[in-house]
Parts: sequence; C-alpha cells; structure tokens
Amino acid sequence: MKRGLLLCAHGARDPLWAQPFEAVAARVRARAPAVVVQLAFLELMTPSLPDGGRALAQAGCTRVDVVPLFLGAGGHVRRDLPQTVAELGAAFPAVQWRLQDAIGEADAVIDAMAAVALARAEAPDSP
Amino acid sequence: MKRGLLLCAHGARDPLWAQPFEAVAARVRARAPAVVVQLAFLELMTPSLPDGGRALAQAGCTRVDVVPLFLGAGGHVRRDLPQTVAELGAAFPAVQWRLQDAIGEADAVIDAMAAVALARAEAPDSP
Repeated sequence: MKRGLLLCAHGARDPLWAQPFEAVAARVRARAPAVVVQLAFLELMTPSLPDGGRALAQAGCTRVDVVPLFLGAGGHVRRDLPQTVAELGAAFPAVQWRLQDAIGEADAVIDAMAAVALARAEAPDSP
Repeated sequence: MKRGLLLCAHGARDPLWAQPFEAVAARVRARAPAVVVQLAFLELMTPSLPDGGRALAQAGCTRVDVVPLFLGAGGHVRRDLPQTVAELGAAFPAVQWRLQDAIGEADAVIDAMAAVALARAEAPDSP
C-alpha cells in the first residue's frame, strides 16, 4: 500500500507565509521517504486541495491522510475540508481518504506552543 | 519586574475554535505562575488585543511579550499586530512591549507538527 499525506494550509498573499508549512512537509519527507507528501492550500496559493489530492491519487497512493495545518478548527476545518475530501472520495474511490483533526488540537503541538511562548516570556531583557 | 504574556490568536465564530489557544494559555500558567498570561483575539472573539494588553498593563506588568499564535506570518502578523503593539506602547509607555515572531515559525512547533502528521500517515488502517 502506497501512503500519501495531504497537508492542508489556509494560504495567504505573502509567499513568506508558507514557509512553516513547507518546513513541515520537508521534515516529514526527510523522516519517511516512503510517504508521498503533498502540501496544498484552501485559497490564495497553489496547489489547491483538489489538485493536491489528485496528485496523490495519480501518484498511486491507495491511502491518503488529510491533515489540516490549522491551529483551531473553525469553518474551514469543519465544513470546507470535509466537503473537499468527500469530492476527492467521489473522484478517486480506489483511494482511502482519511480526514484527520486539526494539527493544533494535538497535545504535542499545544505543548510545543506553550513551551515556546513561555521561553519568550522568561527570556532575559535585551541589552 | 512583573512579566506578562499576551497570546494573540485570530478568533472565529465557533467557540470551540478557541480550545487549543486556551489550552496553551492554561499550560503556560501552570508552568509559570509568576507570569501573567492573557489570551486575546484579533477579531470575532473577546477580549480584543487592545483590551488584553490593557489588562496586563493594569495588572502591573512592566514587560509584556506579545506572542502571535499563528502558524504563518501574513498580514495579521506583519501589519495588524505591530500597529496594535505600537498603540499599546503609546497608551502604556511604562510597559516594555516586545512583539515576538509567529509561533509557527519556531523550530519546536514545526517539529511537533511534522511528528504528529507523520504519526497519522504511519498509523495502521482502522479495522
């Protein structure tokens, strides 16, 4: 079974905005070369989610985990993503599409954010 | 010196959206009871950033680290937040306001997101 990972981010006008998301994709690729990783965007950046999902299906993935790179689960995660995943399922029924929770709901991510925020609050004053 | 931490999130219509951000605030409070932690929102939720900052100044904080709980740094982080922090600085000049980078740019947060995404892609098939 060939596995795919569709990392879904919001998108923005500023190309620099995508850097953390590209870094996540690069790290997953480095750690798991057998997983086909595709970063895609809801708006303003390319590829779109349908295009990103299609690329994974056409690469021969038979299971794709769809991971929302969102901190909170609002309308995008609760409505837009399920609809897109349902459309991908209809277009590529041989692929098992598994929509996951928003990454910001994961304990490890909350913990990392708390640790980084605390380190900044406890940093010494700048000279 | 009394330190404050102003955690800035975007805000959304769905109250559930705020849960990860509230969890970050709760964890920082548990680890560092001496730091005054305030969560605030750019839009749609309260308190607003100016109100959150004012609360920290009125609590007697003499230094406040402003940490954007955003994954990417787009217009909100690059334009809206610096303007709000400048306004807080003008209103409360005795407080040292320190605007930090978006939390999603921190290596530890990128690493945690990559680890969570990879764990999902490598999880066994559901029965």
